[in-house]
Amino acid sequence: MQNSKTGANEVTPWVVEGEVDYNRLVQQFGTKYIDDDIIEYFKKFTGEINFFIRRTFFFSHRDLDWIFKKYEEGERFYLYTGRGPSGKVHIGHLLPWYFTKYLQEQFNAQLLFQVTDDEKFLYRDTLSMDEVNKMTLDNLLDIIAIGFDPKRTQILIDIKKIQELYPISIRVAKAITYSTVKAVFGFEDSTNIGMIFFPSIQAAPAFLYSEKLRRSVPCLIPAAIDQDNFWRMTRDVAEKLGYYKPAQVHSKFLPALSKGGKMSSSLPETAIYTTDKPKDIERKIKNAFTGGQPTIEEQRKRGANPDICPVFFYEKYFFEKDDIKLNEIEIECRTGKLLCGEHKMCLINKVKEFLLEFQEKREKAKDKVNEFLYDPEKEIAL
Amino acid sequence: MQNSKTGANEVTPWVVEGEVDYNRLVQQFGTKYIDDDIIEYFKKFTGEINFFIRRTFFFSHRDLDWIFKKYEEGERFYLYTGRGPSGKVHIGHLLPWYFTKYLQEQFNAQLLFQVTDDEKFLYRDTLSMDEVNKMTLDNLLDIIAIGFDPKRTQILIDIKKIQELYPISIRVAKAITYSTVKAVFGFEDSTNIGMIFFPSIQAAPAFLYSEKLRRSVPCLIPAAIDQDNFWRMTRDVAEKLGYYKPAQVHSKFLPALSKGGKMSSSLPETAIYTTDKPKDIERKIKNAFTGGQPTIEEQRKRGANPDICPVFFYEKYFFEKDDIKLNEIEIECRTGKLLCGEHKMCLINKVKEFLLEFQEKREKAKDKVNEFLYDPEKEIAL
Repeated sequence: MQNSKTGANEVTPWVVEGEVDYNRLVQQFGTKYIDDDIIEYFKKFTGEINFFIRRTFFFSHRDLDWIFKKYEEGERFYLYTGRGPSGKVHIGHLLPWYFTKYLQEQFNAQLLFQVTDDEKFLYRDTLSMDEVNKMTLDNLLDIIAIGFDPKRTQILIDIKKIQELYPISIRVAKAITYSTVKAVFGFEDSTNIGMIFFPSIQAAPAFLYSEKLRRSVPCLIPAAIDQDNFWRMTRDVAEKLGYYKPAQVHSKFLPALSKGGKMSSSLPETAIYTTDKPKDIERKIKNAFTGGQPTIEEQRKRGANPDICPVFFYEKYFFEKDDIKLNEIEIECRTGKLLCGEHKMCLINKVKEFLLEFQEKREKAKDKVNEFLYDPEKEIAL
Repeated sequence: MQNSKTGANEVTPWVVEGEVDYNRLVQQFGTKYIDDDIIEYFKKFTGEINFFIRRTFFFSHRDLDWIFKKYEEGERFYLYTGRGPSGKVHIGHLLPWYFTKYLQEQFNAQLLFQVTDDEKFLYRDTLSMDEVNKMTLDNLLDIIAIGFDPKRTQILIDIKKIQELYPISIRVAKAITYSTVKAVFGFEDSTNIGMIFFPSIQAAPAFLYSEKLRRSVPCLIPAAIDQDNFWRMTRDVAEKLGYYKPAQVHSKFLPALSKGGKMSSSLPETAIYTTDKPKDIERKIKNAFTGGQPTIEEQRKRGANPDICPVFFYEKYFFEKDDIKLNEIEIECRTGKLLCGEHKMCLINKVKEFLLEFQEKREKAKDKVNEFLYDPEKEIAL
């Protein structure tokens, strides 16, 4: 949504549109770029630089250095991320989850995965509770298909486990005025009172394990940068609750297949869903916007522009794992050796192959749901 | 609190001060007086006119005629009332509960008793969760000492049983904008977001049994009239949820022992607590404001004014059950035959006697708490 006052593109947890200027967000939100110090930490602890860091998909953070310093001193952290089940999961959603899985493996970390069914019900006028419940069950399969460790992962569905969150949420809520959420989230007089309260529900998991273990436990939140409003607010109240401020590591968005913005569940042709059939994948990618030229002749002569091309970003941020091959693709693209049609076919095959496998895991996830659901009695590995 | 704009006295669920003008409230809130039709219903169903109705302590209603009509047609209703555990219970709190108990007995009615620990924590800046929890346990004893039928009474403590309320509360919340709660409750930009959401938590019990039984069940709320803001809002959303609007029967406040207003837990000398010792009762009543004259001579000559006298209101609304005796007291008071000091001694004895017995029941209540706590598995007699 264009902000009518400033003409600037707007990034809030509910609206991300336009071509996102990530540098401006880092400035605006006051976060830090992932720099050499952070990369040194990654090398030290994992022996490598993870794909999503290398490709700058995860590009910004807050207190990640502090998390690593604590870890170095022997203090383990837990991961907290989430999903608002307003529709089907698309590939853009999966990327931060795969990075989260990587962090879980490398740091032997407990993961708390919040499913904000309440938020989605409250936010969308037309969405009924039944529809949200259906989407929640559906989205659980995608989350589980990622391959998180069931022993160290708890999926917390807000409405089902509100008794775990509410005692923390009201302490958070008591420290936050309407003025604050109005400024941070752009709430208005016409906003419903559930949405106004909701930020305190999303804040609660950042303190939940501290609360349960009765000591302050470091928490790291890997998530797309549009969620940052919640964490700034959460960090502001942490001290009042007597707990550490949660740290964040922020991702970009996988661009839409159309021109500009992130993939959106409300524009189905611009996103590839995890349940898409091969013919859907083909059609959507064939129709995708690219950085190419209007004619083959022009492309051969002037080359295409991968910097604005969703097809290239799909490769860069997820589908081409080999740095050398990605570099080749980029050069061939820029020099006009690779035509967009050819590149699309190549991507179609990669996406088909990936989703074939993912859909199998998704099918198997149906039998694993109970293993993952939040159980207050389950041991927390911290 | 004096409203600085209008100079009018303000009655909201959190502030009732000044000498309350009940006629104005009926006008302002759009409720109805308890009239002959309602009284006929009472006579028909109970064979009498209950003390609190006769003495006009319960004086106003909304849809009580509808509740009675439904009852006549064989449709039973449940009672819903509550308590915000911000401090010790005083005698003024007990009166609506005794009337509720009466209704439970006469109409064989299920009672849902909400304890809004969340509200009190959110409302009072200085109140910690530990203090609220302590007060909640303490207040439970007063509620149980009233003598409600444990088989047909469920006490629901918000934070402990939030999972029962929250699914309803978010449906209520989705239908209520910030504009509305700003207008109804006087919320401001500096109000915390927990308080803003809270009205949807207080609305939920009005639909809880309907939700559980999967059919719309009539609900009658006996409570002091300051709570009416909640019910107007609750009634407005009932249709959206597909349930009956809850009906209300409104009480006045037992006046403070000082001049004007209702008894307040924040001014301990103006209220008699259920845990007060005989010497406290004596001191407080001896120091009470009355409608008397400055000197004995003047009182003998001109008489006193029971219409503004807390000592008389204690008799009228609770302690003198016999109408003829009350009438005698009133006449002796108005004619100067009864001096305020004498009347105070008389009231002191009645209050002492009442509290001696109440405190015994309160002590015995310690063993009954579990019988009364909300249990989602317990059968609802509806």
